[in-house]
Amino acid sequence: MNEIKIFAPATIANISCGFDVLGCCLESVGDEMIVRKTQDKGIKITKIIGEELPMDIHKNVAGVAALALLRKYSKNLDFGFEIEIYKNIKPGSGIGSSAASAAGVVFALNELLNKPFSKLELVEFARKGEELACGYPIADNVAPAIYGGFTLVKNTDPLRIVELPLLDNLYTTIIHPQIEIKTADARAILPNKIKLGDAVKQWANVGSLVHALHTKDYNLFADSLTDHIVEPYRSKLIPKFEKVKKSALKAGALGGGISGSGPSIFTFSKGNQIAEYVADTIKSIYQKTNFDFNIYISKINPEGIKIISIH
Amino acid sequence: MNEIKIFAPATIANISCGFDVLGCCLESVGDEMIVRKTQDKGIKITKIIGEELPMDIHKNVAGVAALALLRKYSKNLDFGFEIEIYKNIKPGSGIGSSAASAAGVVFALNELLNKPFSKLELVEFARKGEELACGYPIADNVAPAIYGGFTLVKNTDPLRIVELPLLDNLYTTIIHPQIEIKTADARAILPNKIKLGDAVKQWANVGSLVHALHTKDYNLFADSLTDHIVEPYRSKLIPKFEKVKKSALKAGALGGGISGSGPSIFTFSKGNQIAEYVADTIKSIYQKTNFDFNIYISKINPEGIKIISIH
Repeated sequence: MNEIKIFAPATIANISCGFDVLGCCLESVGDEMIVRKTQDKGIKITKIIGEELPMDIHKNVAGVAALALLRKYSKNLDFGFEIEIYKNIKPGSGIGSSAASAAGVVFALNELLNKPFSKLELVEFARKGEELACGYPIADNVAPAIYGGFTLVKNTDPLRIVELPLLDNLYTTIIHPQIEIKTADARAILPNKIKLGDAVKQWANVGSLVHALHTKDYNLFADSLTDHIVEPYRSKLIPKFEKVKKSALKAGALGGGISGSGPSIFTFSKGNQIAEYVADTIKSIYQKTNFDFNIYISKINPEGIKIISIH
Repeated sequence: MNEIKIFAPATIANISCGFDVLGCCLESVGDEMIVRKTQDKGIKITKIIGEELPMDIHKNVAGVAALALLRKYSKNLDFGFEIEIYKNIKPGSGIGSSAASAAGVVFALNELLNKPFSKLELVEFARKGEELACGYPIADNVAPAIYGGFTLVKNTDPLRIVELPLLDNLYTTIIHPQIEIKTADARAILPNKIKLGDAVKQWANVGSLVHALHTKDYNLFADSLTDHIVEPYRSKLIPKFEKVKKSALKAGALGGGISGSGPSIFTFSKGNQIAEYVADTIKSIYQKTNFDFNIYISKINPEGIKIISIH
């Protein structure tokens, strides 16, 4: 295998109740990447289409993640790699743009090297890219990108990822308002300390959400999608947040919240038809504003990164 | 049916990571209660053996819970009830003494009335007794007493209980040091606000504990038994807490912590043999102190309150 083309999916982190620990993977929203072996040793980013991002491997999340992997590869390589990145996920959208690049490149390299690394190790490498992007080696987007489905970051040091089961007919509708919220700012707005009583409600919901995934209980899943901690702060940064959420629920969505650190708003629906109706509803709200926006509908992706072609 | 004799089990609340929401039910530690119909209307407590507790139904948790149930019973009764309580669980031990009395009596009344109420309604009534005992209508002990196994109090208002699956071969070893910690004092020692970072670790553990129960993963279950929030404060009130916990883990226990608001310390083990070895280990630590103590070993009880006999 000399070349691999992959689909690197967008992801939703936090999922209302699971700030910094829960995430899930999208089926039909994501970047594409090509990684190929080269005679020249080392790594180069040779192409980035769709967004203006640094080509310098030390300043690009994919480059940093790739370097982290190659540092741990024990054998001497008599070849190198070049990376092409076709960005569809907008940086700063809150649906795991940097995570897709970081996770995608390490997945591709692992394939080209005959899979020396486990999924957990790939998350380890990818989160070095996240560290460059947001200042923390956060794993709640890269984990679902690599594992697929729903994931729980059980521990960060040492890293431990729990693969959660998936509701079969689960779709997400996401609106990305074209405003900029920096992850660092979205973190700075959060209090260092929270009320114990609010935290109790939050961990009750994390527990019941995990139970709902195991028991295929859409109602309990819906009832667990409540965020007592982060949403009250961050939602103020997002235009029409409350109206979008309320209208989506009225249109049949199971629940929703802020995707990652925003500004995207995600909602979950049972089945594609409701997800599309929710999309129409949300669209009509944003069309009355001056904000540009994108709307995405996607099934939840059980497998994570996908191989498009190999040569 | 004119008379029912039941076993009202002890329970462990909190279970390390799940402060105020998680609980589980014991198989071989608990009270016995007899409730029988009487010609005289109303409720009376006619006997309390084992502990000095109020016979006045308005001052006794079982009385208060029974009254809560009867207030919701729609039909007119031309008879009354008398209650006998045989206490084995010491009040203030932290293993659900008041919950056993409150849950036991409402279960018994429901049987004598041909089961007009659901389990959830029984928890509702029983937690009125808890309100008398500790100032809060807390459900994390009465829920596992009534449902059995592991339970999650998903919401308190309206009350919602999630029945979690059980690890088949799970035993608990509990030491009850004979010191008094009032629930109100154990609550007062807790901070109103906690660090967001600690809360994140806690809800990651609640999520992974629920996942571990579903997947029968004893190792993940063990790794989830960590309390970043409450134990650092309350453990100071319990003599030899750290030593007991460390030695229990060394002896093969999966994990442990403070049972409810203490002073009892619980540990979990896979199988009876390890649970007994853990008991010996803990015993040898406390025998070197001046504290009196009781040690209990019990399987986790999948069914909750049991009927001993009916007449």
